[in-house]
Parts: sequence; C-alpha cells; structure tokens
Amino acid sequence: MEKNEFLYEGKAKQVYTTDEVDKVIVHYKDDATAFNAQKKGTIADKGIMNNEISTYIFKYLERNGIFTHFIKKLDERDQLVQKVSIIPLEVIVRNYIAGSMAQRLGIEEGTKSPVTIIEICYKKDELGDPLINNDHAVALGVTTYEELDKIFKITRKINDLLKEIFLKMDIILVDFKIEFGKNSKGEILLADEISPDTCRLWDKNTLKKLDKDRFRRDLGDVENAYHEILNRIKKIIS
Amino acid sequence: MEKNEFLYEGKAKQVYTTDEVDKVIVHYKDDATAFNAQKKGTIADKGIMNNEISTYIFKYLERNGIFTHFIKKLDERDQLVQKVSIIPLEVIVRNYIAGSMAQRLGIEEGTKSPVTIIEICYKKDELGDPLINNDHAVALGVTTYEELDKIFKITRKINDLLKEIFLKMDIILVDFKIEFGKNSKGEILLADEISPDTCRLWDKNTLKKLDKDRFRRDLGDVENAYHEILNRIKKIIS
Repeated sequence: MEKNEFLYEGKAKQVYTTDEVDKVIVHYKDDATAFNAQKKGTIADKGIMNNEISTYIFKYLERNGIFTHFIKKLDERDQLVQKVSIIPLEVIVRNYIAGSMAQRLGIEEGTKSPVTIIEICYKKDELGDPLINNDHAVALGVTTYEELDKIFKITRKINDLLKEIFLKMDIILVDFKIEFGKNSKGEILLADEISPDTCRLWDKNTLKKLDKDRFRRDLGDVENAYHEILNRIKKIIS
Repeated sequence: MEKNEFLYEGKAKQVYTTDEVDKVIVHYKDDATAFNAQKKGTIADKGIMNNEISTYIFKYLERNGIFTHFIKKLDERDQLVQKVSIIPLEVIVRNYIAGSMAQRLGIEEGTKSPVTIIEICYKKDELGDPLINNDHAVALGVTTYEELDKIFKITRKINDLLKEIFLKMDIILVDFKIEFGKNSKGEILLADEISPDTCRLWDKNTLKKLDKDRFRRDLGDVENAYHEILNRIKKIIS
C-alpha cells in the first residue's frame, strides 16, 4: 500500500490517503508538543517507537475484542488504518491522579483514585481542549448520549485490558487519553494511538516516569523512557 | 425564634444557630461578589429582596413536591431553615448558554441549548470552584453515584418548575445555580437560595438582564433589576 495524497497533519502524526477510499496511512513523527502546543520539541526516533508500541497495543486490544482503526504496520513510521471521522472528544481515563487534574482537584499527584475516573475534553485547540461533561458534548452536537454510553463502556474495557498488560511489565498505568472515530459504516472504533505520548506510565518499583512527562517537565532521559516501554512490551505482547 | 450564636459567614449570607439544634437562621446581606470574589461590592437592599424572592420560590417549590431547607421567613433579612451539611457541589442548570460557559464551549451567549445542561462544580474557593464530573465528585469523596442520581433527578424537576413559573412572569430562565444539603436524617434538601444572585433571568421580550450580571458586568440599574423580579414574582406566586 502506497501513500497517495497528504490529507492532514496533527501534532505527532501525518495522515495520507491510499488507493482505497476507506483506508489511510498514518505516519508517526518525532515532533513532541505539550501544554496545548505551547511547548514544542522533538524526541529522537519517537515516531519509530510509538508506531511499534501502538502496533503492539492495538493488536493486543483487537485480540481481546476491542474494535480499532488499526489494520497493519507498513514500515518503521507508517501504519495502515481504517479511515474514520474522529469524534472530537479526548477520552481520558485516570486510575491515579496526576498532572493538571491533581492541581484542579487539589489532590496530591500519585494518589490512587478510589473510582476509575473517565473524563471527556472537547478537542478544540483554540479553546484549549476544555473539560466538558456529557450534556455539553451533546449540546455541542459532537455526539449523542447513546454513543457516549458505548464509548464509556469500551473505554472501561480498554482500561481493564491495559492495566492488566502493563502490570505484567511492572508498569502502573496512571492515566491515558484515547480518541474514537466512526468508519463509513458508522461503527465506533478506537483510533489515534496508544503510546508513552498518550499514557502516563510509571515503573511499579521505582515510580520512574516512562512517558511524555519526561519531555513535558524537562526530566531528561526522554528517549530512553520510550525505549524502555518498547522493550518491556516486546517481552510481554507477541 | 431568636438568633443565638454566629455560625458561619458566606459571601451573601450569614448563618446563626437557634435554640433548636436542627434549625438555623440565615441572614441575607447586601454584599455582592463575582468572579470568585475578585470583584466585590454591595447592592442596596439586595438582602431584603433576595430573602423575599427566595421565600416565594422555596414555598412554590415545596408546594410542588421539592424538599427544601426552608421553614419560614422571620423578618426583612432573616429566614429560618433546617440545618443541613452542605454537599460541596454547585449544581448548575443551563437552558441557554451564557457567561463563562459561552467562552468555554465557543458558543455565542444567548444560544438555546438543544438539551438541558446540568453541571457540577466543586465548591472550593481556593481552587476556583472548578467544573468536575460525577467520577471526580465521587473520587473527591464529597458524594456518591446514588446521591448524584437523586440530585440530578430533583434538579431536573426544579428546572421544569422554575422555567414554567418564570415564563408566566415573561422571564426566560437562562441558567441557575443550586446547592443541596443533608439534614440530620440524611435526607437531601435543596438549600442555599434561589434569587437573581444565583439565576440568569432575561426579560422575554426585551432580553434585558434582570440578575447579578448587571453587577458582574457593570451594566448599571442593578437594584431596579432585583426589584423588577420581586414585583413580577409577587403577581404570580402567592
């Protein structure tokens, strides 16, 4: 499958059309952004690592009954996926409180949440991706209550599957962000990527951060963290 | 019933104990604040007007099956109410999009929402009363999912009743904020107040704002707006 026309550029990926209308190629870049793109940089080989990490995780989720946009990994940086129209919601799952939510709620970072927190943010750069609730999402016309029910159900299953597999790698899944899209049949699929760009992953024993917070907070050792995640995944997911 | 000990001072009211442990006296002040108390001022006789307006509305809601903390109006500025422990949530209902939510969602102020929006904010001055969702509220330990279900059910009924009665006064109920508390029996009661301090009320024909936005936005004619609401209520609610 060859890249055809350039379609869209996001912060960490580019999307290209292919000869088949319902398939697109996602190209993983090394660009890294944080704080609504106020901070910009690159992480060497991030695109290569995230393509591989995402591929392992999408395959694992697919095997466990989650419908994703993933079709196959094409080469170092490219993935063939189903074309979807993205539902403009960031779905965030928190098992532990960290990042901006710790400040927002006045809770110390690293506190385990007594319940699984699922949030939705309205994906709109110029508004800063604000936290919203179900009523806002429906009022905005971006989804329906029925779709949200489905999305939350799938999200809980994804969280259970990811927590389990990361724990086998001695990693705590602190939180993660996913996005969903609808294919031409109107089916809701997990889209975007799952990688250290979109998850907070802490080593279970040392609590070392092995994710984009190393870039976000200038903690150094960024590339190694991504390598570490990839290496641990390779040992656990086939 | 006489005021006993001073118990608590809020932005617009004071609370005093009485000789009965499960009853307190709420004293309505003229103090007005906005933007998390960054803006402060007074509105002449506001306490007198809000005490009277709130009394009319609590009586109307009670007659229609809503349990409130209200017992009786004692005098110009004082109300006898059931003592409750306030659930630290601001429950906000939006029939039209206005105020900070218009900016947050990128929707023009005055747009009618296709669905009734119910929001909860965590009542915590030092955090700026942030918008949260049900999971956050439960994770914070301030309520349970079951209580939230009850609160949302009561809130929808209150909205229906208020929309109806305000429409009879040629007033559009744009949005409003309510608070709930639990009495010594653990019953959930509507508490706080319902007044032009806590509602956005627009004249149906002229769209003139008849609420605290006149103070918040320096629109002038503040006292008259509160008087206007009181006068219209008197004609409709007995």
